[in-house]
Amino acid sequence: MNTVISSLDRASILAQALPYIKRFHGKTLVIKYGGNAMTDPALQAAFAQDVVLLKLVGMNPVVVHGGGPQIESALARLGKKGEFKGGMRVTDAETMEIVEWVLAGEVQQDIVGLINQAGGKAVGLTGRDGGLIRAKKLISDVGDLGFVGDIQNIDASIVKALQDDAFIPVISPIGFGENNESYNINADVVAGEIAKALNAEKLLMLTNIAGVLDKNKALLTELTPAQIDGLIADGTISGGMIPKIAGALDAAKSGVNAVHIIDGRVPHAMLLEILSDEAFGTMIRAK
Amino acid sequence: MNTVISSLDRASILAQALPYIKRFHGKTLVIKYGGNAMTDPALQAAFAQDVVLLKLVGMNPVVVHGGGPQIESALARLGKKGEFKGGMRVTDAETMEIVEWVLAGEVQQDIVGLINQAGGKAVGLTGRDGGLIRAKKLISDVGDLGFVGDIQNIDASIVKALQDDAFIPVISPIGFGENNESYNINADVVAGEIAKALNAEKLLMLTNIAGVLDKNKALLTELTPAQIDGLIADGTISGGMIPKIAGALDAAKSGVNAVHIIDGRVPHAMLLEILSDEAFGTMIRAK
Amino acid sequence: MNTVISSLDRASILAQALPYIKRFHGKTLVIKYGGNAMTDPALQAAFAQDVVLLKLVGMNPVVVHGGGPQIESALARLGKKGEFKGGMRVTDAETMEIVEWVLAGEVQQDIVGLINQAGGKAVGLTGRDGGLIRAKKLISDVGDLGFVGDIQNIDASIVKALQDDAFIPVISPIGFGENNESYNINADVVAGEIAKALNAEKLLMLTNIAGVLDKNKALLTELTPAQIDGLIADGTISGGMIPKIAGALDAAKSGVNAVHIIDGRVPHAMLLEILSDEAFGTMIRAK
Amino acid sequence: MNTVISSLDRASILAQALPYIKRFHGKTLVIKYGGNAMTDPALQAAFAQDVVLLKLVGMNPVVVHGGGPQIESALARLGKKGEFKGGMRVTDAETMEIVEWVLAGEVQQDIVGLINQAGGKAVGLTGRDGGLIRAKKLISDVGDLGFVGDIQNIDASIVKALQDDAFIPVISPIGFGENNESYNINADVVAGEIAKALNAEKLLMLTNIAGVLDKNKALLTELTPAQIDGLIADGTISGGMIPKIAGALDAAKSGVNAVHIIDGRVPHAMLLEILSDEAFGTMIRAK
Amino acid sequence: MNTVISSLDRASILAQALPYIKRFHGKTLVIKYGGNAMTDPALQAAFAQDVVLLKLVGMNPVVVHGGGPQIESALARLGKKGEFKGGMRVTDAETMEIVEWVLAGEVQQDIVGLINQAGGKAVGLTGRDGGLIRAKKLISDVGDLGFVGDIQNIDASIVKALQDDAFIPVISPIGFGENNESYNINADVVAGEIAKALNAEKLLMLTNIAGVLDKNKALLTELTPAQIDGLIADGTISGGMIPKIAGALDAAKSGVNAVHIIDGRVPHAMLLEILSDEAFGTMIRAK
Amino acid sequence: MNTVISSLDRASILAQALPYIKRFHGKTLVIKYGGNAMTDPALQAAFAQDVVLLKLVGMNPVVVHGGGPQIESALARLGKKGEFKGGMRVTDAETMEIVEWVLAGEVQQDIVGLINQAGGKAVGLTGRDGGLIRAKKLISDVGDLGFVGDIQNIDASIVKALQDDAFIPVISPIGFGENNESYNINADVVAGEIAKALNAEKLLMLTNIAGVLDKNKALLTELTPAQIDGLIADGTISGGMIPKIAGALDAAKSGVNAVHIIDGRVPHAMLLEILSDEAFGTMIRAK
Repeated sequence: MNTVISSLDRASILAQALPYIKRFHGKTLVIKYGGNAMTDPALQAAFAQDVVLLKLVGMNPVVVHGGGPQIESALARLGKKGEFKGGMRVTDAETMEIVEWVLAGEVQQDIVGLINQAGGKAVGLTGRDGGLIRAKKLISDVGDLGFVGDIQNIDASIVKALQDDAFIPVISPIGFGENNESYNINADVVAGEIAKALNAEKLLMLTNIAGVLDKNKALLTELTPAQIDGLIADGTISGGMIPKIAGALDAAKSGVNAVHIIDGRVPHAMLLEILSDEAFGTMIRAK
Repeated sequence: MNTVISSLDRASILAQALPYIKRFHGKTLVIKYGGNAMTDPALQAAFAQDVVLLKLVGMNPVVVHGGGPQIESALARLGKKGEFKGGMRVTDAETMEIVEWVLAGEVQQDIVGLINQAGGKAVGLTGRDGGLIRAKKLISDVGDLGFVGDIQNIDASIVKALQDDAFIPVISPIGFGENNESYNINADVVAGEIAKALNAEKLLMLTNIAGVLDKNKALLTELTPAQIDGLIADGTISGGMIPKIAGALDAAKSGVNAVHIIDGRVPHAMLLEILSDEAFGTMIRAK
Repeated sequence: MNTVISSLDRASILAQALPYIKRFHGKTLVIKYGGNAMTDPALQAAFAQDVVLLKLVGMNPVVVHGGGPQIESALARLGKKGEFKGGMRVTDAETMEIVEWVLAGEVQQDIVGLINQAGGKAVGLTGRDGGLIRAKKLISDVGDLGFVGDIQNIDASIVKALQDDAFIPVISPIGFGENNESYNINADVVAGEIAKALNAEKLLMLTNIAGVLDKNKALLTELTPAQIDGLIADGTISGGMIPKIAGALDAAKSGVNAVHIIDGRVPHAMLLEILSDEAFGTMIRAK
Repeated sequence: MNTVISSLDRASILAQALPYIKRFHGKTLVIKYGGNAMTDPALQAAFAQDVVLLKLVGMNPVVVHGGGPQIESALARLGKKGEFKGGMRVTDAETMEIVEWVLAGEVQQDIVGLINQAGGKAVGLTGRDGGLIRAKKLISDVGDLGFVGDIQNIDASIVKALQDDAFIPVISPIGFGENNESYNINADVVAGEIAKALNAEKLLMLTNIAGVLDKNKALLTELTPAQIDGLIADGTISGGMIPKIAGALDAAKSGVNAVHIIDGRVPHAMLLEILSDEAFGTMIRAK
Repeated sequence: MNTVISSLDRASILAQALPYIKRFHGKTLVIKYGGNAMTDPALQAAFAQDVVLLKLVGMNPVVVHGGGPQIESALARLGKKGEFKGGMRVTDAETMEIVEWVLAGEVQQDIVGLINQAGGKAVGLTGRDGGLIRAKKLISDVGDLGFVGDIQNIDASIVKALQDDAFIPVISPIGFGENNESYNINADVVAGEIAKALNAEKLLMLTNIAGVLDKNKALLTELTPAQIDGLIADGTISGGMIPKIAGALDAAKSGVNAVHIIDGRVPHAMLLEILSDEAFGTMIRAK
Repeated sequence: MNTVISSLDRASILAQALPYIKRFHGKTLVIKYGGNAMTDPALQAAFAQDVVLLKLVGMNPVVVHGGGPQIESALARLGKKGEFKGGMRVTDAETMEIVEWVLAGEVQQDIVGLINQAGGKAVGLTGRDGGLIRAKKLISDVGDLGFVGDIQNIDASIVKALQDDAFIPVISPIGFGENNESYNINADVVAGEIAKALNAEKLLMLTNIAGVLDKNKALLTELTPAQIDGLIADGTISGGMIPKIAGALDAAKSGVNAVHIIDGRVPHAMLLEILSDEAFGTMIRAK
């Protein structure tokens, strides 16, 4: 850090956090963790620090993670090649088994370890634990996707119990069906549904973009779903940016109050978004 | 079931459970789950029913599972061959990764699913979750075992929190070290240490033997560690039976009050052991 | 017990109780205790065991007892002869005094003792204790019945307090009036009103019949009050059986959700009714 | 009441109660209720008012009652004659049955009714209820006394549960033995043992004497057990007064902190003793 | 006190308090403390005793005090002269400062000290403490009154927290405005608003009159606001008595359930009003 | 604030607070508030923000304030001149009255208002409130100091009750004696005794010095009382600096674990001291 920053400036930055800590005290923040923030070691450490700090100052962070690259890598080791239809992974029985290995047996546990290293007490969950996520096979018009799941019900009692006991839940996007079969579910969708079930104050989606930009590449700090639809229609949002904001847009449309697209490539971006005056990404308000 | 059993007999069997339910009310039972009971579908279902029934009648079951065969199978799929020294798996970094995949991402979750199907609310944990099992590298005289762990500390707060909230903890025998590295730990040892940390009433070890037998193959229903040492010395216990009771013996020697060797090949053996007059296996009393 | 019953069968019987224990967990069961089950020593012991077992597995049994034969016997010792009108005991002041002696000072206390011997913690109550049953003189068209009471109000706070503190309430059917006078009340009626006041899951009436039988003497396992009225009208239910089911019928008609007629002559009949698949008597559903 | 008492005087009397209410707040007062106070209607009403008032101002009164005259009367109605040895009632099986009728089924319930009429919520208990008083046969050198009991153990959990729930316990002096048999126990002794088990602040014994008097018939307001022994030795206390203070003396000797002999013939004597400056009887301090 | 009052009479007076203690148990009593009762040492002591006694017997007294004479005296010492318009003190900035000195730094603390001396645990509050009384400038048709306040909002959380922790709140009639400025508020009005915010059972106003008298100078013990309006209209209430009952009348009109005008010149008048049959002042019922 | 500070730097400053928030979670911090920090409006606002922020992030700040200049000013308005002996204000009865006016009726309430404006819920207390500070006349060898007090006892129950209910206590240094008289007590001493009674983690003394400096004017960040005594002995600490650190030195010597001398002239100095790596003043460790 730049050592020429004066003590007064440093103190002011801390003091500016006051109204935000006050506003979000006791509130639940669901954090979709993915992209660079999950693979770069320095960004991982900063993320874990942020989560623990938010917990300590009285908020209730809940992490939902993805893991596409890690799944790809494991499939490759087993001589399998991932297949996608309409952006979704075709998940046959063997792939589902590997997805569970990687998400519950590797990625989730790595995140738990990171948060614990930063001084928190994280507990990993899948949708099976405490009956959290009940799902059924997703019927898609792009064809048969195998064990890709559609959420039927969220029973958030295990998440609430852990929060009350000062633990930080870390959730893998796996659901279970009526015959006890597992389903691979889109992590953005899980984060949105968890946010709704917990009546979360915010859903924070760590992505690899700075937020939604206008035609002049200036950050748009607050948008409604309708405005985003307009920006897509007029071509302001196009190409590779569309899938990157799709999850946030869906969550906002389906009722999550405030969805934030946060640039996960910037260390502590989440902390600045929540605890400072800086508008650090794009917020999508449900209404 | 034999339908000629009279109603009166059926009622008597239920009524006989009364003193046991009373005696073990509110007590913690740690169950080491392994062997046939974990691989045969009918035995799996009976096990899950038993766990849920014990929880419902007021006891606190905690499951610790193994998973040797499943690990072997996964290693084979990845073209690796398990190597053992002194009965312990040599666990290099890659093997450790696969052990975590299989234990946390497959076996544990399968058990959680089984218990939930039987009407319980199970929650899977590894030693990372809530900082449950801190470990360091096991220094063994059989040579370098890689990431095989020696338990340093049990922080049972997450287990207690889940018990209080009516959840059933299911624990994978994985610990974490001071640099956040994972360790593969013997499940019998984990079960014994968890039992001590929770001040458990009983440690029940589901095995593939009927219990300890005398020279005439009659079941010995209650033994002290010293008596077992004597039976090994005089050859009554020999050959393949020795490793099968080693974990129970160690736990009894290290201070767990009552360790039961239960025949996991018999459906509901655990239930009969706890809730009936039948001595269904061998109990080793610490003193 | 028949010793040829296999362990497996025994375990299955225990395991079958699981869904029932789960379904009735935390629910209140009001038990009208009378007839043979109250006079035969073996049946008494089985009854007490059942009550304690139900409490231990998480239900809340509340006992309401009768005591006709014991009152008759006491009256005889004092040289009085019981007089009845329309099936109800004419209760003059002296008889009322003796009724209280016998119900509160003998029958209730015997039941408390039996339950305590079986390992429970019973507490006897009359309608005076904690202001439980306020009553007034019953105006009957069969003539003046003296101190026979009509329930005015149930204040169940003492019953709830005892339940919460793990005690088992045993209630004598005596009420008190506005001038502090005592009233003798029909025990079936008291059981029904207590069940309504506690919003009980079930009212179990131990009687000396197997249940309601059809013309071919086959047990009718589930009936509505309207169906019973029909069976009386067409003569299927007739003679001495009518008064034996009158209390259960009244309770069902006055709003108790499920009223069971249980054969109190069979040991543990109540346990089988609640904890097994066997339909052991007749259930009358309010609707 | 004398209507010429000024308002100021009336207010002063109320205000003088302040330090006593403060001192005894939350403290348990065990009251042995017997003698005239239990038979005269005006004294009964005043007693019940006092008990309710003490409860309302934050103390925890627990009533233990006797019932000798009522037992005599019932025996007579049944054609039996009470027999005494060494001042204790010889209690054969039939007498014991009648003692239970009268104490639990008449006297206790009358007192419960009186207290409820005065606005309290009383709950009657015998030694069976909640396992309160375990006893065995009293071995006496005056000969076989039948079912006269010697207290083995007090389990005061039911008394404490009722106190916490704002109920006023009223205890009949009946114990139960290991074969579930009943025992008739001296009420003074029961009161003393209950006081010890509850760590009571005071044991108040309502008697038919003004207290202990010196040779000049002046009231002695505070004495030690040793001083009483001296007064008996020198003849100051003699004749019929000795048995009347024996229970109080025993209780003080066996460890109850402060035992008060209160003149039960004076309305509200108990209230004045506790809530005013007036020394209204004799207090025996354990030390 | 007149020592010829018999013990029986003394006991009866205590016993007569029973129904009142019962009726007002757990209820909040707001007491407006002013006039002679606040300046005469004997009356002060009696007032403090009464407050502590009411607290001890289970009620929740909350004191709101005035302080006109003390403010006058302080102004005089600082060479200022109080100015009034329409009966209200014109409060310029300097006067406001002195009002705060006197109310919060003298009168309130004197009352806290008195109550503590009587055995209570009082805690002084102004409208600033815990954000209790938010106010704005009172707009009056008698002209500019400076910092005389009009209550905007009562946040009674601090009062409730103190009550729950067994403390007795003593409130000075000072509010704070949106720019953190202080306001001098009429104590009668504060008492009325506090009574409404706490849903108080009674508002007791200690005044220097015996109550409302009819044309024959007989005390009117119970009136409605409408009846008082009538008595003013027909001249029964006139002259200097009108302002003395104005606060009580306003409170009753604005929704306080029962407002008592109590003669603060009589020691313990408040106690007699609440704890005895004596009608000691005039009660104004809202309806 | 300097707008050229990068977002990354801002985030790092927030993240650096994590270990400190963790370390001091749930701990009590007693803050002696005086000097410039209490008179400069910008510093006042920063102080209030800091107190609220510390409360929000889970610590328990308790403020003890002084008020010398405000007392001087009030005395002057009343035509009195303050007199000092040995650095202590000679406090005759009239002065004591004015001290109470100013401390409880002005300074304390101003601080309560400031903290409330910053979003906290402060409650002002003197030593009278809840019986917090019992004192007696200080016997000094500099002569008679009038109502200057020596602390006899701290009853911190009111402070703990307010902390538990999320309020921030603000304490004026006034005690009460056995005749209910008031005492003026040195605020540093009150802060030290309150810190001891609450077993505070830290006592923070806001002063007008940067801390203790060595001969080269470099800040000494951590000292023991013995080292300070040495520095006074060798002349490093001399002149006007001695009284400025006397209170901190006394508190450390009398058992407060860590006493911090904080430069109250620097905005948010307290926040930096607690929540950052910066050593911002001098810490005196008891041992």
